Amino acid sequence: MKALVYGGPGQKSWQDVPDPRIVNPTDAIVRIDTTTICGTDLHILKGDVPAVQPGRILGHEGVGTITDVGASVGNLTVGDRVIISCIKSCGHCANCRTGLYSHCLGDEGQSGIGWIFGHLIDGTQAEYVRVPYADNSLHRLPEGVSDEQAVMLSDILPTGFEIGVQYGRVKPGDTVAVIGAGPVGLAAIATAGLYGAAAIIAIDLDENRLEQARTFGATETVISGSGWKEQVLALTDGQGVDVAIEAVGIPQTFEMATRIVRPGGNVANVGVHGKPVELHLEELWIQNINISTGLVNANTTPMLLKLVAQQKLPAEKFATHRFTLDNILDAYDTFSRASETNALKVVITR
Amino acid sequence: MKALVYGGPGQKSWQDVPDPRIVNPTDAIVRIDTTTICGTDLHILKGDVPAVQPGRILGHEGVGTITDVGASVGNLTVGDRVIISCIKSCGHCANCRTGLYSHCLGDEGQSGIGWIFGHLIDGTQAEYVRVPYADNSLHRLPEGVSDEQAVMLSDILPTGFEIGVQYGRVKPGDTVAVIGAGPVGLAAIATAGLYGAAAIIAIDLDENRLEQARTFGATETVISGSGWKEQVLALTDGQGVDVAIEAVGIPQTFEMATRIVRPGGNVANVGVHGKPVELHLEELWIQNINISTGLVNANTTPMLLKLVAQQKLPAEKFATHRFTLDNILDAYDTFSRASETNALKVVITR
Repeated sequence: MKALVYGGPGQKSWQDVPDPRIVNPTDAIVRIDTTTICGTDLHILKGDVPAVQPGRILGHEGVGTITDVGASVGNLTVGDRVIISCIKSCGHCANCRTGLYSHCLGDEGQSGIGWIFGHLIDGTQAEYVRVPYADNSLHRLPEGVSDEQAVMLSDILPTGFEIGVQYGRVKPGDTVAVIGAGPVGLAAIATAGLYGAAAIIAIDLDENRLEQARTFGATETVISGSGWKEQVLALTDGQGVDVAIEAVGIPQTFEMATRIVRPGGNVANVGVHGKPVELHLEELWIQNINISTGLVNANTTPMLLKLVAQQKLPAEKFATHRFTLDNILDAYDTFSRASETNALKVVITR
Repeated sequence: MKALVYGGPGQKSWQDVPDPRIVNPTDAIVRIDTTTICGTDLHILKGDVPAVQPGRILGHEGVGTITDVGASVGNLTVGDRVIISCIKSCGHCANCRTGLYSHCLGDEGQSGIGWIFGHLIDGTQAEYVRVPYADNSLHRLPEGVSDEQAVMLSDILPTGFEIGVQYGRVKPGDTVAVIGAGPVGLAAIATAGLYGAAAIIAIDLDENRLEQARTFGATETVISGSGWKEQVLALTDGQGVDVAIEAVGIPQTFEMATRIVRPGGNVANVGVHGKPVELHLEELWIQNINISTGLVNANTTPMLLKLVAQQKLPAEKFATHRFTLDNILDAYDTFSRASETNALKVVITR
């Protein structure tokens, strides 16, 4: 088959590789019908994730059709259309039993790490992929949900909802600020209303993204230039927001989040960070705030899938550009120049 | 009357001052029967809390007898024995209505700050004190609870319980580590069982404090020298603790807390910090942890008082040394040399 293979920092190629095979009885093989690219894939290509070794097939999002199942797979059969969750979950370990799939202790890839596709095992930017723990890591697609909608449920929608909205403990009436209106920030904006957020403030450097944020549900937008903090405080009677969701992953935006949260409020860090941050505990110890971090568990994917099927979540709106697998290098080019191309998610089909 | 007056960094004196008077109709005047000294008072004397101006009467903990009440005080009368909460709470503002008394918006002292005694208004290390918002900030004492027990409910017991145990989201079966076995750390140890902690690991530099920790409920003790982290991990099957409570207030102990918490666990910062800390988000972003901070709300004082009255909480065990008000300077000396004197709380009576 063909697959996108990582060749070391700055290097990738669409090349011939051996077809994946069933290794464990809990595996399934899935033919990729639709995949996409995540900001994390760009980090890997910069060399920021040294655990990814040359030769690894990239990608952790995908929708496809089952072509083979291991002997102990019980809930799925050949021909089923499925969403591939970006997180493996054996379903049996101490962490899986509490829904903490992000830290599944199953042996595949590495015990204790849920994100293994395109990281510690071969990923989804390929014609076929081997999926471990298929009964738990795949979600059968109902009729009426398109591949383009479903692929947003591999990662971005559950990430924005679980790590932003749920970990941020959004509750009815809250004012929620989302810093960074990229795909995951927009996913938090799109799902904050599920817990009754009354006002949703999108903060970004990019006017175009702020315009898009309004179409996903933002009620206010703030350009993150000078005066941004005063603007946010003015929108909250000077008290600060109930929940600040950080969806960028740099020290400046994390600090922004801690500066605009009200006493008793929550900072939900969703961004992937490559450096330590300075936490101003000399001011924050007295503020009664809460800071959460996390990798998605994808334990809300079935619920979010229902909402997409019921037209309650506009998953299809994330798709801005379309490619076929044999043009995946063009897709990367478009996605990596998002500030020029206005790309949110690039959809790549077979 | 006589009172302990702050004279600037390093200076304090037991001197004559005017008697306090009712200023607002919601005030009460309380004759101090018992007070104590907090680590925060030592910080003030070092000049670490510049908001405290020379001339301020120190102290934010106390038990006493009401000698006068303002016209609108409804629930209390002259002669009532009361606990003085370390936190003012008007009971009417937006924050008080959600139990966030630590950030009471009432005008006394400063709007938005609950801790004002011995900070922004005159405190409890005196013969008498004016208590604002008396109906909400005082708690009438039942028969059978001694002053020595009750004074531990002004600050340390609610602080350890609310900011350590409740904010740390301790739940049945949890393994809880408490870093720092001073009075507030011991209060967290003494109350962690209220939410069903199965194992409580006390961590401190001081062998004596670790011995005391066992008598308050610690099931394991670890000296914070070399190998401390490995010892904690060995006590938790290598996974880390469910809840790490930081009760010291320096960067090293905060970092310790973030290093021993398991994926999905909670770090509850109780310590008062004077400096920023480095937060290793480059490792922690993926760990699904939660970090809480806070000043006590003292909204659990009535509940904790019931437990003390029912002999379910050993409040009296915190009292290690006893003085009278006219020897308060000796009390400070004993308390400030706690590592030599083994002082926990010094009890000062009229």
